[in-house]
Amino acid sequence: MTYNLDQALEILERTPNTLNIMLLGLSDEWIYNNEGDNTWSAFDVVGHLIHGEKTDWIVRIQIILSDSSNKVFESFDRFAQFGNSKDKTLQQLLKEFSELRTENLKKLKDFKITESQLKMKAAHPELGEVRLKELLACWVAHDLAHIVQIARVMAKQYKDEVGPWKAFIPILNT
Amino acid sequence: MTYNLDQALEILERTPNTLNIMLLGLSDEWIYNNEGDNTWSAFDVVGHLIHGEKTDWIVRIQIILSDSSNKVFESFDRFAQFGNSKDKTLQQLLKEFSELRTENLKKLKDFKITESQLKMKAAHPELGEVRLKELLACWVAHDLAHIVQIARVMAKQYKDEVGPWKAFIPILNT
Repeated sequence: MTYNLDQALEILERTPNTLNIMLLGLSDEWIYNNEGDNTWSAFDVVGHLIHGEKTDWIVRIQIILSDSSNKVFESFDRFAQFGNSKDKTLQQLLKEFSELRTENLKKLKDFKITESQLKMKAAHPELGEVRLKELLACWVAHDLAHIVQIARVMAKQYKDEVGPWKAFIPILNT
Repeated sequence: MTYNLDQALEILERTPNTLNIMLLGLSDEWIYNNEGDNTWSAFDVVGHLIHGEKTDWIVRIQIILSDSSNKVFESFDRFAQFGNSKDKTLQQLLKEFSELRTENLKKLKDFKITESQLKMKAAHPELGEVRLKELLACWVAHDLAHIVQIARVMAKQYKDEVGPWKAFIPILNT
């Protein structure tokens, strides 16, 4: 698929509700268990998505679209959620994510990004030169990748319970 | 986590709605594109889940719980959906899946499976001896594994569009 704002919005608009349906009201073990040392739980992932809404996507789009002669992104803090989500419930995080996403998609639409703007560039601190189209496509792929992660983390909680079926479910063997 | 019917139901009950939210109303490319030769689209996966509701979980639970002296599962047809889903819309498939799941969870609850029944066994045509608990846990892990698959297939549609970010999203490199 070629990046297309309308098709991208179809995914970006759905993610908060997808996570609400997947996670609200689950037992704590489904929400707080992870895949082992230095891995994330579903709760951690939602916190990470919130941090992205606050410091990544819209902020970086604004940098690319700006008139600055020095368009450089700040590094994204992949561990911010471990502090920020403290003392919050999953329900609070999901509500916060949903509200931020709604605001951000309004901003995205208000940019009225043109085809030629999609080619505009900035410097990523680790990846080097990146284009607006790539950032926008990444927002979508990033949402989906974290839905993958959440479902995988949850599936893995039963990796021993499924017995011999483990051989048939590749994600349980990662 | 140790298998527990109530916690398993939390996931099994959610899957139809999770898929509805993720997929209903999406553009055809999100629904029908796959990961390449001999891989499945989101549409194919929903058809596969329907076939599981019809021929796998409840049927196999009934075999294990039966008084038969020869408890052997039939092979599951992993390709049935390619015929069965023909001429159906995604909306029809999602409705069918949702209805079958509701019926099947009613049946599951009506079995009133006891702790000791969880240890009952049958023979799987490829895996050999399996226990009821393992089958029940597999139902849950299987749902989650296919949510993983659907989100991954969709993410991969943008694997070229994300440019250098591909390096940061491991599922795009599988």
